[in-house]
Amino acid sequence: MDSIRGTNLLSLDELSREAMLEVLDTAESFVEVNRRTIKKVPALKGRVVASLFFEESTRTRLSFETAAKRLSADVLSLAVASSSVKKGESLRDTIATVDALGIDAVILRHRSSGASLQVSRYVPHVRVINGGDGLHQHPTQGLLDAFTVRQVLAERAGTSGLESGSGLFEGLRILIVGDIRHSRVARSDIAAYATLGADVRVSAPGTLLPDDIATWPVTVSADFDEALVGADVVSLLRLQSERGSGTFVPSLAEFTFTHGLTVERAKLLRPETLVMHPGPINRGVEIDSRVVDSGAAVVERQVSNGVPIRMAVLYLTIAGHNEGVGL
Amino acid sequence: MDSIRGTNLLSLDELSREAMLEVLDTAESFVEVNRRTIKKVPALKGRVVASLFFEESTRTRLSFETAAKRLSADVLSLAVASSSVKKGESLRDTIATVDALGIDAVILRHRSSGASLQVSRYVPHVRVINGGDGLHQHPTQGLLDAFTVRQVLAERAGTSGLESGSGLFEGLRILIVGDIRHSRVARSDIAAYATLGADVRVSAPGTLLPDDIATWPVTVSADFDEALVGADVVSLLRLQSERGSGTFVPSLAEFTFTHGLTVERAKLLRPETLVMHPGPINRGVEIDSRVVDSGAAVVERQVSNGVPIRMAVLYLTIAGHNEGVGL
Amino acid sequence: MDSIRGTNLLSLDELSREAMLEVLDTAESFVEVNRRTIKKVPALKGRVVASLFFEESTRTRLSFETAAKRLSADVLSLAVASSSVKKGESLRDTIATVDALGIDAVILRHRSSGASLQVSRYVPHVRVINGGDGLHQHPTQGLLDAFTVRQVLAERAGTSGLESGSGLFEGLRILIVGDIRHSRVARSDIAAYATLGADVRVSAPGTLLPDDIATWPVTVSADFDEALVGADVVSLLRLQSERGSGTFVPSLAEFTFTHGLTVERAKLLRPETLVMHPGPINRGVEIDSRVVDSGAAVVERQVSNGVPIRMAVLYLTIAGHNEGVGL
Repeated sequence: MDSIRGTNLLSLDELSREAMLEVLDTAESFVEVNRRTIKKVPALKGRVVASLFFEESTRTRLSFETAAKRLSADVLSLAVASSSVKKGESLRDTIATVDALGIDAVILRHRSSGASLQVSRYVPHVRVINGGDGLHQHPTQGLLDAFTVRQVLAERAGTSGLESGSGLFEGLRILIVGDIRHSRVARSDIAAYATLGADVRVSAPGTLLPDDIATWPVTVSADFDEALVGADVVSLLRLQSERGSGTFVPSLAEFTFTHGLTVERAKLLRPETLVMHPGPINRGVEIDSRVVDSGAAVVERQVSNGVPIRMAVLYLTIAGHNEGVGL
Repeated sequence: MDSIRGTNLLSLDELSREAMLEVLDTAESFVEVNRRTIKKVPALKGRVVASLFFEESTRTRLSFETAAKRLSADVLSLAVASSSVKKGESLRDTIATVDALGIDAVILRHRSSGASLQVSRYVPHVRVINGGDGLHQHPTQGLLDAFTVRQVLAERAGTSGLESGSGLFEGLRILIVGDIRHSRVARSDIAAYATLGADVRVSAPGTLLPDDIATWPVTVSADFDEALVGADVVSLLRLQSERGSGTFVPSLAEFTFTHGLTVERAKLLRPETLVMHPGPINRGVEIDSRVVDSGAAVVERQVSNGVPIRMAVLYLTIAGHNEGVGL
Repeated sequence: MDSIRGTNLLSLDELSREAMLEVLDTAESFVEVNRRTIKKVPALKGRVVASLFFEESTRTRLSFETAAKRLSADVLSLAVASSSVKKGESLRDTIATVDALGIDAVILRHRSSGASLQVSRYVPHVRVINGGDGLHQHPTQGLLDAFTVRQVLAERAGTSGLESGSGLFEGLRILIVGDIRHSRVARSDIAAYATLGADVRVSAPGTLLPDDIATWPVTVSADFDEALVGADVVSLLRLQSERGSGTFVPSLAEFTFTHGLTVERAKLLRPETLVMHPGPINRGVEIDSRVVDSGAAVVERQVSNGVPIRMAVLYLTIAGHNEGVGL
């Protein structure tokens, strides 16, 4: 797919490099809006966006809702706890309701892999944006991570993200560490980085690698310390104990011992290496608190960039081809 | 009561045919607004509407909040879980707070029959809209059901709802099926249809009929299959297991056997008969999934029509006599 | 601190009389806005305010959110139940997210004393407004209580709050009754009243007085009945059973017997004495229902005044020095 204009965003696996760059480049223009005192444009005035979070997430929901409000859309928030799911209503019937209400777009988070795809088939006239589905994908996270890498590298190179296109990703060594098996963030990050031309490697205890890792566009690094030395970007994943990763490692301490980014291990990194984490962080497990708070980590910049990326995704999918951004 | 302008909407029992037609006719003008790309009018700009849902409901809450936002009102959402009720605050004190905050209207859902009436006595300066109270009433559901019937019949007759007034209801045979005893929807639907001139019949296992059914403006149909043959509209009610209907039937399967709209029974319906359900549906209990998804069912249209009906109710009760709709 | 313009509101202990009067005087102008049909000014258009309530409160959250919407700010609501706290995220990481999203101000309610101060250190670019922290402070409650006292006394004196400054507080005898030990409201009320020049007294069972009461700017009245006779204002505190006050009194009935404002005791009050309660009231415990509903009580006026006071606080802290109110 070469553009997400007027369509859904379900997975990054299906997006071409052009489609990804279109989102990244659109987000650049929204970064500027987010620096104004009045951080608001009329691009989606009168449109209604519903956030349907069947799994809760402070970070992602606030980020999407902030993005929607900055585009002047109206936002309806539906958290798990307040859903008719309690009355035994099916996802299908819930979504049919949303469709019938004339809502323009749904941001869906759901514990089932494929929930967004399923929903998009039920409601062809509503734009569906995957806010995380099971172990499958979390596409806006992949896009904001790629955006963050491009932004930092462009600043260092004295150029802009817009001018650099995907050039800065060519041959960039990106190491993704931790619970690859249970991580939708890993799947979306890998799709984004690989499509943009980076050299993506993964490192994890064998039990936290997916069974089909050989078919993924990545190299598995057996030696974590060696992989750290060579990395331009180190992206740590959250241990998804709520999605069962706990039973795949002997203990959290064991995981930290073999694959945590401790202060000791952080010394192996080159000074310019970026350290990333999608949050929420298990401090002291995936990464030591002192490393999170060091200059190498760009965790807060990732969160910041979530807003312009989600503005770009909402704008492109909802407004489609015919309308200007109204900056 | 001949109009709800500037007053409350607590029950349909007290509304005249004129008052109901005023809501239906006002809703017609909002249907058009809901077809625009920018589905918004400034009619209630600067007004604050609070939705107080002491019982949760995806459908009704989202519908009311969408309606309020399309009228440009500000919406404050207060779900059960987030209520001071947990601190033991009385409904009276909660509502006094709402009053003191200067809120213009309250949409109240509560498990106690009569809660809306009680609240309206506490706060004479706040408009109270009953969003469902116990076993008593759910007036906007009754209005949107009547609106849906009129809309479909008018389309078929090549006329408009506005032009037809209440004419299309004269002698219309409407069959309401299922848990009449525990259904506030049944009470509101019956009030609407009977007041508008329809011939209303009910069919249910004897245990699910209210004790005072003889005083209602309906005929009880003992033979469900025969009643189906004669019906112009079949309106199925949700089995309210959360309000105790489970103890009134031997089993769900038994209910489905005697009063479910199975594929077999649906064959008894004439081709033009409308099948309705207020949702959320217990698929396979009140109605077979294949019947829900057939052309006869107008379930999604009912949900869609909830928005213009609730826009009309909010507009008429809040703006009252003196203001234009600002389309 | 002589003004809260462009800074945080964490505690009333640090505010000078000038700073308090600035809030009270700014609130006076917003009272008028709250009497309009369209209760809205553009003062904070395009600003985003997040309400982070780690403890729930109908009254305070609705009041703050109403205030923010009347200033045209966008509001993001994050209740406890929907927080990543469930995933074990630290307050620090939650607040870092808010910072990174570019949110202008946070209204924080938290069970830990000092949470607001801690948060304000994490996010120097976000305005932090304490919406109640543990046993420490609830500054907007103190300000709205002082505002209410000034407003009523000014009306009686045929003057205005604005003209009277802090003059009406000079020598005013204010009696605060009940669970002083566990009450952040008491701490904020006392700071406000004492700073504005009133003569503040407290009365409580010995177990409900804090250990360091001797260092507070109050007199302890041993004889409750005598103290009632002399009071110009009687402010009752909620028994904070959810914060452990239950274990400090033998029983609720015992508390009511010694320190409840029963109908009998209310007869000791002079006709002009004001009776106040921050709500939610335990009717029949701190105060008899008949006394709440008598002319002496200004409980609803306190709630009403919460909106202009919070508008003033949001406006002064966020807009700071450079902008007009845009009335």
